[in-house]
Amino acid sequence: MTQIVIVGGSDAGISAALRAREVDAACQISVVVADAFPNYSICGLPYYLSGEVRDWRALAHRTRAEIEAGGVTLLLEHTATHLDLAHCAVHTQTANGSERVIPYDRLILATGATPRRPPISGIELEGLFFLHSMKSSFQLQRYLSTHRTRHVAIIGGGYIGLEMAEALTHRGIHVILLQRGASVLSTVDSSIGARVRETLDRHRVDVTTNAPVVAIERHGGRLRIRSAATTLAECDAVLVATGVKPETALAQTAGLSLGAQEAIVVDERMATAQPGVYAAGDCIVTHHRLLSEPRYLPLGTTAHKQGRVAGENAAGGARVFAGSVGTQVVRVFETVIARTGLLEREASAAGYSPLTVEITTWDHKVYSPGAQELVVRLTADRDTGRVLGAQMLGSLNSAIAKRIDVVAAGFHAGMTVDQLNDLDLSYAPPLGSPWDPLQVAAQAWLAERAAGHAAPLTSAARTAE
Amino acid sequence: MTQIVIVGGSDAGISAALRAREVDAACQISVVVADAFPNYSICGLPYYLSGEVRDWRALAHRTRAEIEAGGVTLLLEHTATHLDLAHCAVHTQTANGSERVIPYDRLILATGATPRRPPISGIELEGLFFLHSMKSSFQLQRYLSTHRTRHVAIIGGGYIGLEMAEALTHRGIHVILLQRGASVLSTVDSSIGARVRETLDRHRVDVTTNAPVVAIERHGGRLRIRSAATTLAECDAVLVATGVKPETALAQTAGLSLGAQEAIVVDERMATAQPGVYAAGDCIVTHHRLLSEPRYLPLGTTAHKQGRVAGENAAGGARVFAGSVGTQVVRVFETVIARTGLLEREASAAGYSPLTVEITTWDHKVYSPGAQELVVRLTADRDTGRVLGAQMLGSLNSAIAKRIDVVAAGFHAGMTVDQLNDLDLSYAPPLGSPWDPLQVAAQAWLAERAAGHAAPLTSAARTAE
Repeated sequence: MTQIVIVGGSDAGISAALRAREVDAACQISVVVADAFPNYSICGLPYYLSGEVRDWRALAHRTRAEIEAGGVTLLLEHTATHLDLAHCAVHTQTANGSERVIPYDRLILATGATPRRPPISGIELEGLFFLHSMKSSFQLQRYLSTHRTRHVAIIGGGYIGLEMAEALTHRGIHVILLQRGASVLSTVDSSIGARVRETLDRHRVDVTTNAPVVAIERHGGRLRIRSAATTLAECDAVLVATGVKPETALAQTAGLSLGAQEAIVVDERMATAQPGVYAAGDCIVTHHRLLSEPRYLPLGTTAHKQGRVAGENAAGGARVFAGSVGTQVVRVFETVIARTGLLEREASAAGYSPLTVEITTWDHKVYSPGAQELVVRLTADRDTGRVLGAQMLGSLNSAIAKRIDVVAAGFHAGMTVDQLNDLDLSYAPPLGSPWDPLQVAAQAWLAERAAGHAAPLTSAARTAE
Repeated sequence: MTQIVIVGGSDAGISAALRAREVDAACQISVVVADAFPNYSICGLPYYLSGEVRDWRALAHRTRAEIEAGGVTLLLEHTATHLDLAHCAVHTQTANGSERVIPYDRLILATGATPRRPPISGIELEGLFFLHSMKSSFQLQRYLSTHRTRHVAIIGGGYIGLEMAEALTHRGIHVILLQRGASVLSTVDSSIGARVRETLDRHRVDVTTNAPVVAIERHGGRLRIRSAATTLAECDAVLVATGVKPETALAQTAGLSLGAQEAIVVDERMATAQPGVYAAGDCIVTHHRLLSEPRYLPLGTTAHKQGRVAGENAAGGARVFAGSVGTQVVRVFETVIARTGLLEREASAAGYSPLTVEITTWDHKVYSPGAQELVVRLTADRDTGRVLGAQMLGSLNSAIAKRIDVVAAGFHAGMTVDQLNDLDLSYAPPLGSPWDPLQVAAQAWLAERAAGHAAPLTSAARTAE
């Protein structure tokens, strides 16, 4: 009977376990989980801290009982301390120090990621928080509940920083958002970032851009955040949200090959070079369908898919991971921002000849009540017409997340701008337009290319159909 | 200078004119429009009659001035009476009887469709209405405004019937909906139709199914609607909404070839067999990407696309219509219903080996406030795994229209269920789930096929991720 051991009990690890069980009802599956919270929705932490999710237990994708009912053994509060690849065994230790060696036939590493600790002096001070696990979430929750916290600085204006800016504002806390670069949400272009900032301004989040933090100092009960030249903020607590790095110490020590950002190298079957050893999720490098080189792209959706592939293959299957196209969406108050594919600068760096247009149009026929404006940025290759990326920004009820998914679906077929314009998309006056906003953007792009501009331009919106 | 003459000023005709102008700035473009309302959103009529659109002028996709500013000549209230293909001329007549012969180098027929008149005795009575043009819309509006109309019967439970049931209810009128078949909205499967009926019931629309109308009689101030056996309804007015048929009398008289449902036969360039004569929109047969035979598929989105292709080619281009996949969406009160591709029975008739699953899951992570259930029916070929159709039903803010568009985009690439499951779709807890509902359906389908059931089954919902 095949023994499958999985290290890590978050999205990738549990997906792998469940899929292995589906594929092979007879194999033994054990998941080594460092904490007591298997299969929790880490993406849901901001909504717990905002107060929208009242019971943290609701964040579990599945309960422990549900996972175990499928015949998966959960080894909770077991820390994997060493991988003995030569003898096919994982060494673990529990909180009370007891050690256990777990033999495997197939090993899946799903060790995830940890927050980056930027080189800031004072980063170890009390009142500083990171957010990546249930434990770190409880720490922040406890601090906010027991201290009179009125002003919180967030370092980093990416997804977590923005979601936490909303969450803390929702809690009645004044938020100071410090962003190193020139605009927030640097995963989209600055014209979109500027609109995100307008949303933050409307909700009285104090945003400072071009604000590289070098030091945090404690002055009495308060924290002072400094750049090289000036004081950037004074506050009661600091959340550091400057991204994550793969958690690959175990893999590295065991001699597994590491790639981009020291993430574990796997092939399209999620197999490492070591026979019988797979890896999936936020600890590995990911194939991007629009790029020739693998990237580090830690995302929950990708982790689920990679985990499923690793689990199937560990159980004897031959599944291939189809690759990511970098589809992402975030809600910031009443605004939704989504992207898929490449930004223009990323496309250029990858050797494409990108041309980008930006349009503003209505989410549905403007005569039908409730029509809202949305923004589409469409990037495609000037020579081949192949769609390379899309960014969208709009209102909560404008289906931005699913609109970007239409482009994402097209990427899997190498769709051109002409083909995007040809898609038979749905329409009813309260729900859309005869030409979908993506197709309005496609037509603007084709017109722009035909006009032969040498440099990317921003097109005015066409009259919405 | 090329003279392009277009007969018909609705979606296909105006799209053709605008595209021809873009492609060839020098050609002369004339559009023969039977009424005074070029480029009106016929799909918007129910929202005018509901009172949501207060000024009917708002229904215009573009104003007359906007169209003419582009250098398109509009011949309003000109009825085309005869096509003289031998001499390349269109004969027209105005309301006051004056005749005019308009020569062309390229002709585009965009004559649209007219309501079907079912074989019902009494269908010519006063108080009966059809809905397909601004004029018919004004007639109904005037009647409702000047008569004490408390009960209206709608014959036909398709898109227009359902939208008008909502519109009249919104106006405070009691609606009796009579549907010939066993469930409303026969363009989706009956399990979805049953849920649509629940929505109608909630809003006190009186629905009678299996109700074939054979006669309408006037009794004093009221109309009595009868089947062969019984009285179905008594009411103050009747709206007949039993579909449309192509308006092709001109084409037929001119000897152009007609196909399915007497719609004009065109090739993929929208060209008829007659050199220089194109046709587009609700008067033609349409290529369906999942079917080998062309179908009659009158839809606004398709009309826009076909018009664009016809206009480009009439102006000297060589554009090909990419085909329809039958994507449709409708709002019925707070419920949205969408479909794309084929129903199982249509797939069987087309020679596929369809297998269908139906799942119910959440539109986003259930811990995030406001999560709503939605239904996905997924049909795919048992042998090849190719996706053949999807139907969805959900709430107004669950992005149903754009979710179906993800499947529609996939059709253009011949997507399989495995590939649907592989799509890199967006996720954030308030906006989606790590596995999109379409992917939950894909996994249910794969499990169903693997289980080897001989007949299609309905799968229970999986736990939403």
